[in-house]
Amino acid sequence: MPGILDGIRVVEASAFVAAPLAGMTLAQMGADVIRFDPVQGGPDARRWPVTADGQSLYWAGLNKGKRSLAVDTTKPEGQALVRALLAAPGPGNGLFLTNLPTGKGWMSYEALRAERPDLIMLELVGNPDGSAAVDYTVNCAVGFPFVTGPDRGSAAVNPVNHVMPVWDALAGTHLALALLAAERHRRLTGEGQKVRIALSDIAFAMTGHLGCIAEVEVNDTDRRACGNELYGAYGAPFETRDGRLIYIAVVTDRMWRELGKATGLAARFEALEALLECDLRHREGDRFQAREAISALLRPWCLARSLDEIRTAFDGTGVCWGPYQTFRQMLAEDPRCSPANAMFAMLDQPGIGRYRVPGSPIAFGALPRQPPRRAPLLGEHTDEILRQELGLSDTEIGRLRAAGVVAGPPQVT
Amino acid sequence: MPGILDGIRVVEASAFVAAPLAGMTLAQMGADVIRFDPVQGGPDARRWPVTADGQSLYWAGLNKGKRSLAVDTTKPEGQALVRALLAAPGPGNGLFLTNLPTGKGWMSYEALRAERPDLIMLELVGNPDGSAAVDYTVNCAVGFPFVTGPDRGSAAVNPVNHVMPVWDALAGTHLALALLAAERHRRLTGEGQKVRIALSDIAFAMTGHLGCIAEVEVNDTDRRACGNELYGAYGAPFETRDGRLIYIAVVTDRMWRELGKATGLAARFEALEALLECDLRHREGDRFQAREAISALLRPWCLARSLDEIRTAFDGTGVCWGPYQTFRQMLAEDPRCSPANAMFAMLDQPGIGRYRVPGSPIAFGALPRQPPRRAPLLGEHTDEILRQELGLSDTEIGRLRAAGVVAGPPQVT
Repeated sequence: MPGILDGIRVVEASAFVAAPLAGMTLAQMGADVIRFDPVQGGPDARRWPVTADGQSLYWAGLNKGKRSLAVDTTKPEGQALVRALLAAPGPGNGLFLTNLPTGKGWMSYEALRAERPDLIMLELVGNPDGSAAVDYTVNCAVGFPFVTGPDRGSAAVNPVNHVMPVWDALAGTHLALALLAAERHRRLTGEGQKVRIALSDIAFAMTGHLGCIAEVEVNDTDRRACGNELYGAYGAPFETRDGRLIYIAVVTDRMWRELGKATGLAARFEALEALLECDLRHREGDRFQAREAISALLRPWCLARSLDEIRTAFDGTGVCWGPYQTFRQMLAEDPRCSPANAMFAMLDQPGIGRYRVPGSPIAFGALPRQPPRRAPLLGEHTDEILRQELGLSDTEIGRLRAAGVVAGPPQVT
Repeated sequence: MPGILDGIRVVEASAFVAAPLAGMTLAQMGADVIRFDPVQGGPDARRWPVTADGQSLYWAGLNKGKRSLAVDTTKPEGQALVRALLAAPGPGNGLFLTNLPTGKGWMSYEALRAERPDLIMLELVGNPDGSAAVDYTVNCAVGFPFVTGPDRGSAAVNPVNHVMPVWDALAGTHLALALLAAERHRRLTGEGQKVRIALSDIAFAMTGHLGCIAEVEVNDTDRRACGNELYGAYGAPFETRDGRLIYIAVVTDRMWRELGKATGLAARFEALEALLECDLRHREGDRFQAREAISALLRPWCLARSLDEIRTAFDGTGVCWGPYQTFRQMLAEDPRCSPANAMFAMLDQPGIGRYRVPGSPIAFGALPRQPPRRAPLLGEHTDEILRQELGLSDTEIGRLRAAGVVAGPPQVT
């Protein structure tokens, strides 16, 4: 089944989150993505979380839908195979994605473009100067850990890191975006290029976009952590009668009206407005400043009802809310995270098992939705790629295997 | 100065984070992005953070480099102007980006494509069924808040929300990515389409990609929060002699060797390996399980040194580390977040002031880096757009203004 990126082939030299995610994002949109790795696997081959016998759930998650080539690129013959893949003719070829150090050797932009002048190379580095950085060492630099979690005064103490690798995930999506932009430019002008993204730039740019730079530089203020509340608007967590937690958010005037209506608290909200001399109906800044009082009205309402009763009261209204769910509750209770949602399918991942797997979150109306495909085994497509893409004979492939230049998939029981 | 997306024009009907960010991401890559808003401003016009006199730093941050059209689309004449913009001929036109409810009226895909059959419309919704969701009501559903912050046992208690709106930011980047994919498809086939993304799908997909679904469904385990440590590898925060905090991460074998060398602790790391009977040199899972002992060795080393001394010891080595910084420290101390970094420039934002502003984090080698451009004033480009893009005369524009169909920029002192 063709995807929206049918005809694009990306060769990927990667590890960890951002670059593998970029390749997978493109693969789930229909690109042919060939990830090559050392014959013993890359540095992320065994990354946690893992199964009881050490198979990486992480690797399986971030490499879905790719083809895997296991090749020893410390050997000149291995390098030649990758170079040949990248130099292959055709408008969809000549796309190289990497977050590994490429240095000045055979994998450098200069060396590779010598064999295909319109090569597009996407390179992710840690910092703009090329030094190493990972999500955690970037995240600590951009201020968010000090405003995450409960308010602990204004001092720079007790930071709380995010767990979801935000900057990696954004960097991966930006790499995919940059690839399509560069591919468009090549189609229009014939010109290839090297595209470079620094992980730290992703973080500093987003921090600026969200106003956190101006808040200091223009306002000269230091934002305080405000727990689980929604800075600048209204949002707060509440306990239900059956011991669950929910979140209620109000970011539009309509959501405020709907909340008053669905809870029957509209008259009290009006009384609160008079009491605090503010405009809760039209000003979200006022709702933020009145958040404790608003929550004091909502808390008993929620505590008097079960999660199911609250769902009944809110669903179909314009109230913006949702239950807190652990990963386990999310799987047990939420149809959005199951094959009832077209984005998900149950897949068998060899060596791991059968579980629900997400495809691309983007639904292109012009084509049927691409079902998710499992991750490859290491070297699963070595023979196929050498034969189909490079035109090697079985004899030549046998010789490369015997010489340890390439390897096929491990046997999985 | 042309950007990589020169020739692409996007019309945007948006509010809040994701869709404005998508338009801005494209604008910072050189697309012409026209955001239209009601003459009194959209629902995010005054969103926090704001200046002392209520100007939105948030709006200025998320709408940089766009053109602003202020138009009353409750009036048929206002609708006709937007429809004419979207129906304009040319291969780069006919691109519509929105996260507002478009319903079945004039702004629906069906109505708009009647005037330009190859229209591309990108629609962001909250949930797949079209119901409302925002970052906070999605985030609480995907498990991360229960594994963020200090370990508090296995129970589903005391969630910690992220502050950076991760899912919005990822949704915005996906919208930009989807637009380029659909534009490529149109260029190759002539076919337009409606593209739909649900914010909740962005979150559930990423949660699956990162292995958090398989961890429950395959392993039947519930991950515990592990504070600021790096789950599955080594990473931890440390205090310095001068009371600052730093983060040290080890995600490759080389980083482990370099850390031992730069701190002089290599021999102790080896002794620790023998003591714990594990392989700290080659197995990151072992480093994770031995994290307390590793940190016990690193803690006194860090506490005996100032931040500057640690910087001297680590810079130029392969150690992966970074200082924790509040937003204020980030601006005061980090050259990566200043015009010393080519991504940043000092800009004047009318009504707000002068501050450092980030451009696109993507550096395209084929073209000079696009400097950031400020956000427009509401309606700043109304006349220009009506004149240049729709060919209206000054007389017609005057009539539309007088009738309250369009508005120009507010006077700013």
